[in-house]
Amino acid sequence: MVRFTNHFSTKTLDPFTLEKGYEALCYEAKGGSVGYYDLPHSSQKLVEELEDVYHTIDRRFNTIAVVGIGGSSLGIKAIERLLRSNTPNAKKIIYLENSDPISIMHEMKEIDKFRTLFIVISKSGGTVETLSIFKRLIVSFELTVKNSEQIYIVSDEESILSRFADENNLRRFVIPSNVGGRFSVLSAVGMVPLTLAGFDTKTILQGGADFLERFWNRKEEHLLQKAAFYVTHRDQYPMNVLFAYSDTFEEFGKWVVQLWGESLGKRNRRGERVGLTPISLIGSVDQHSFLQLIIEGPLNKTVTFMHIESSEKHLMVPELSLKYLEKSDFINGKSFSDLISAQCQATMESVLQSGVSVDEIAWKEINEISVGEMILYYELLTSTSGALLEINTYDQPGVELGKEILLSYFQKG
Amino acid sequence: MVRFTNHFSTKTLDPFTLEKGYEALCYEAKGGSVGYYDLPHSSQKLVEELEDVYHTIDRRFNTIAVVGIGGSSLGIKAIERLLRSNTPNAKKIIYLENSDPISIMHEMKEIDKFRTLFIVISKSGGTVETLSIFKRLIVSFELTVKNSEQIYIVSDEESILSRFADENNLRRFVIPSNVGGRFSVLSAVGMVPLTLAGFDTKTILQGGADFLERFWNRKEEHLLQKAAFYVTHRDQYPMNVLFAYSDTFEEFGKWVVQLWGESLGKRNRRGERVGLTPISLIGSVDQHSFLQLIIEGPLNKTVTFMHIESSEKHLMVPELSLKYLEKSDFINGKSFSDLISAQCQATMESVLQSGVSVDEIAWKEINEISVGEMILYYELLTSTSGALLEINTYDQPGVELGKEILLSYFQKG
Repeated sequence: MVRFTNHFSTKTLDPFTLEKGYEALCYEAKGGSVGYYDLPHSSQKLVEELEDVYHTIDRRFNTIAVVGIGGSSLGIKAIERLLRSNTPNAKKIIYLENSDPISIMHEMKEIDKFRTLFIVISKSGGTVETLSIFKRLIVSFELTVKNSEQIYIVSDEESILSRFADENNLRRFVIPSNVGGRFSVLSAVGMVPLTLAGFDTKTILQGGADFLERFWNRKEEHLLQKAAFYVTHRDQYPMNVLFAYSDTFEEFGKWVVQLWGESLGKRNRRGERVGLTPISLIGSVDQHSFLQLIIEGPLNKTVTFMHIESSEKHLMVPELSLKYLEKSDFINGKSFSDLISAQCQATMESVLQSGVSVDEIAWKEINEISVGEMILYYELLTSTSGALLEINTYDQPGVELGKEILLSYFQKG
Repeated sequence: MVRFTNHFSTKTLDPFTLEKGYEALCYEAKGGSVGYYDLPHSSQKLVEELEDVYHTIDRRFNTIAVVGIGGSSLGIKAIERLLRSNTPNAKKIIYLENSDPISIMHEMKEIDKFRTLFIVISKSGGTVETLSIFKRLIVSFELTVKNSEQIYIVSDEESILSRFADENNLRRFVIPSNVGGRFSVLSAVGMVPLTLAGFDTKTILQGGADFLERFWNRKEEHLLQKAAFYVTHRDQYPMNVLFAYSDTFEEFGKWVVQLWGESLGKRNRRGERVGLTPISLIGSVDQHSFLQLIIEGPLNKTVTFMHIESSEKHLMVPELSLKYLEKSDFINGKSFSDLISAQCQATMESVLQSGVSVDEIAWKEINEISVGEMILYYELLTSTSGALLEINTYDQPGVELGKEILLSYFQKG
């Protein structure tokens, strides 16, 4: 379970705005043009199928190599990081994402070709980084593609990558055409690698389904309020900070940044540029970095404080008093978990006192249910905000020009 | 060597503003109140001394454990990541920073107490995370503190931590009192762990000294122009994005974020909140995340594109054409280095076309000289911007309240 508290004032919010947001999402979900609302239910069947596959491959493979970038890797990484300590026996996952040669060489060194299952993921099927790295892997590890049982493909039904898979008789999984890359973590994109690595994806889906049901039943009104507040005050607060207290939130923060930034940075119906800028911070580390700017800089940011109520309690600050360092003894005998929780509370209080608009997300604990809930929470928050901004939340037309220019460079050469 | 190009228009900049920035820095450097300007020279002697220490400890220790957070870790991590592949024989460095219990336990598992040199770093000497973790290490590894040859201290001359070091006869190194934490990487803070790990810190200092000399001789005017542009247009562009094309820039980006955010987010002389918000991105990965917002969202950001001209050229995209995937063949036979460089250029061009203010930083290659140059570049850029904003660039009064609240929580309990 996760507890949500909006510390900003919701009094000035127009009730009509909340209704408008809710109705827009109902319309999207019923109309069928936006598919991610169905995933917590529709992916259950896929996961059952994958659990069967898991048993057939379990002894052969100890590593999953995910070849994918952006929406085809961020969500997987987020879930893996959050649930890794809950799932100590899960297989190792290697990510081949960036076109950075140093990273690719580094990851390739980690691969034992006989014990690795390669999963190539691309919604469009044509992602240049993914296909280039895939070719490099085929050559470097002398993989026989035809009929290979160690290469799986995850892509759109109609994509060139799916045709390639069928041509070579590879096992492939479909990303529904109405599910966009950054909303796809609960589709085959996330379910295939995570289930085959041994994560309990079924319960993650259950958490997502639970949250979704409460949202449709108007039991998560804080979400509508937050979206309405963010959109209404977007000129005043163009930046939304997620300040998450645990290193395990690092990849989750990056997933949120993609979801929020790429979905909401758009031209609206009238051609005006709109958008909200996401910023992901980790506590307590970034108290020593970014906090000063939040507290004394321009009041142009909202801040969401995220923390875990019931974390690892066993690691204690010893009852040790060192001469001249007695100043730090106030924390002796407490757990580090208590320290980081108190740091989050103290920082939140000081940020509130400085006049910043704040909300709080308290995870009771990190488990499969709460991870599923939080994925749906951020997806629904993004969709509601996009609807209120009157944009197409699900496309990304701005990145096409760069791809065309890239192509022209190499065609010239 | 590093090449700097401002693609934004500098025509409207008031020449007086540039002079004002330059003069302010001259005044700071001569007045002695701001000490980092001296470090590229004054740390040379420290590094020579450390090189002697290195030879006496080299065979005993294979790991350096840095216990420090914020300004006491970010710069070290940035340099280590950038130069690690240049320095394959450097000792392993472990960072104990955050109060997150899961991270602390994870890092502690990596420590072999007999082969590890512990370096405890805190400018003030009272950092709660650092002292708490230090105590945990003493107890968990049963370290005898008195006369220990495997615990070094880096702190202010007058701090409680320095007194503790003297009390226990520990080797200690001094951070000059006029050097602030986030400007301290070229002081003992960075030089002690990096030199003792085996990095060529002498040449890093040389790179810093070279850049500084050119700056004082008015041969780096692009820096003054950029600071003047950022400060003059701060209401229009409250955010400054660093889009760096290589995963090895990840920690450098975090160092820049601290330097920029914590230095410039302040109340000015008239009590007004000023500040510029730093955002660190990695290419090509974040082309699949944040780029859409830059191109089509509000024009409220400047963007700095950073790339490496001469990177690892040996990893090629194979000359392999796969049926149905021929669309990606345009990149066949090129190096991944060529691909990522072309992606940076193409993205920069598309961002320029969308009307964003852009500048470019091209590293000829990543080596000790260029790392030293870039550290001074960002420090001087920050100081110039702070002078033009008429703030105290070197303090951080906004974070004190949170510390007081934290203390009150535990004193109550």
